[in-house]
Amino acid sequence: MPVFERHVFVCHNVRPADAPRPSCTHDGKSELHARLSQLTKEAGLGGRVRINKSLCLDQCEHGPTVVVYPDAVWYGNVHPEDADAIVTEHLLGDRPVERLRLAEECINTKSCPHKCRD
Amino acid sequence: MPVFERHVFVCHNVRPADAPRPSCTHDGKSELHARLSQLTKEAGLGGRVRINKSLCLDQCEHGPTVVVYPDAVWYGNVHPEDADAIVTEHLLGDRPVERLRLAEECINTKSCPHKCRD
Repeated sequence: MPVFERHVFVCHNVRPADAPRPSCTHDGKSELHARLSQLTKEAGLGGRVRINKSLCLDQCEHGPTVVVYPDAVWYGNVHPEDADAIVTEHLLGDRPVERLRLAEECINTKSCPHKCRD
Repeated sequence: MPVFERHVFVCHNVRPADAPRPSCTHDGKSELHARLSQLTKEAGLGGRVRINKSLCLDQCEHGPTVVVYPDAVWYGNVHPEDADAIVTEHLLGDRPVERLRLAEECINTKSCPHKCRD
């Protein structure tokens, strides 16, 4: 079996309720991770694509955050109902889901216009 | 600031003491993650390289495990004293640390010769 064709990290960080930055999963369960895992297996990608829980990806204000490697495609504000598009369009179809992508200027920056609006 | 030039995931999974598979960090502190973070900043790579805690990377028997993206270079049996080589040779010098690399045939497989010897 080859090394993973794609390795998908789903932020699973839980902060205290009074923390200044938001959590990517509030209940520590991450329905998003569970749905991505299930749909990936159902799509026949089990063993080829790993859906991995990650600790803080540091894009908290744009969370829940997902990053897909080796593509280095970042998704923000991802909800469980978006899992199907990520699996079908990106992991199977090789086309990133543009509507979910974080703009490059929003990633790894201390401030961006979206941080105030989210 | 650009998106991360490299994104390094350090397995931070803690299993119960009686679990059949080993933990990548036994005490939940991960001195390896702390040293990689510190040395990365000291090397002037802060903001360009992220040292990220990950949950299970599923290579437990070869752990502690580290994977570097977008290179998709996997390291196994990594100890805190190996952090300097990873930062200096790989993250600064662009040459993976061959002595720490997991062989491709050891990754994402249910069995490999090393699993019995570790």
